[in-house]
Amino acid sequence: MNAEFVNPFISGLLNVLETMAQTSLKPGKPMKKNTDIAKGDVSGLIGMVGPQVKGSLSITFDENLALTLMERMVGERPASVDAEVGDMVGEITNMICGNAKRELSEKGFDFGMATPMVVSGSQHTISHQVDGPKLIMPFNSDEGMAHLEICFDK
Amino acid sequence: MNAEFVNPFISGLLNVLETMAQTSLKPGKPMKKNTDIAKGDVSGLIGMVGPQVKGSLSITFDENLALTLMERMVGERPASVDAEVGDMVGEITNMICGNAKRELSEKGFDFGMATPMVVSGSQHTISHQVDGPKLIMPFNSDEGMAHLEICFDK
Repeated sequence: MNAEFVNPFISGLLNVLETMAQTSLKPGKPMKKNTDIAKGDVSGLIGMVGPQVKGSLSITFDENLALTLMERMVGERPASVDAEVGDMVGEITNMICGNAKRELSEKGFDFGMATPMVVSGSQHTISHQVDGPKLIMPFNSDEGMAHLEICFDK
Repeated sequence: MNAEFVNPFISGLLNVLETMAQTSLKPGKPMKKNTDIAKGDVSGLIGMVGPQVKGSLSITFDENLALTLMERMVGERPASVDAEVGDMVGEITNMICGNAKRELSEKGFDFGMATPMVVSGSQHTISHQVDGPKLIMPFNSDEGMAHLEICFDK
């Protein structure tokens, strides 16, 4: 998985959070994921199906970061990860993937996006079941961590 | 979402567990899901993308049931939900969806399957972000509950 392919997802995440919630994330060092090390409290997941490849993407937030994003977007801070926070995370997931889909389509790489799913639960982990490369990318912020994972089957 | 469409997923789940792990599940009453009521400890999730529709499927197991399935398949019971249990849940997810894909394809309804993802974490919930109908189907067994959810965007 080369940078040309991964960068549209990363820039999608940074742009979406900057635009929707005036929040800057600091990208950490990307890793090839071999174990399920990203733990978080709320995650958006989406499947991708293209003519040549299929894969999956997840974006996992610490609870505090998710609540702060919600607060910055709607002006009020929920007490915990509720259905509205879930919807926000689903929408962010859709936008990251849609952003990348547009950019990659211009480069001749096409895929269809499934509908997003949102998982809530303290300190859950996600394992992407692909044979191909798995990339995990940590992001830091004053409000907590986010982890973006992108995986394809070859 | 009519029975003709949903049944291949249900029969897929029942057949896979019967064949792979000699385990019978008792189907409960299907519900149109409005809240995230299915809690479980390990889930397989997969996205679906077709020319007319897109959607998502999840199958959530109680930890005890997942460990029992593993025990019946490989002869040894893991102490907790580990990577191998995760792989098994991913494989079950793939088989349920593949089973339904074949049957539905014969009826002229086609979709592509993304790669499965597996979520581990005590008592997590899943929210499928679709505008269309959401179906949640509980299954009982002596070893614990399973919940199958199938959602499409229209």
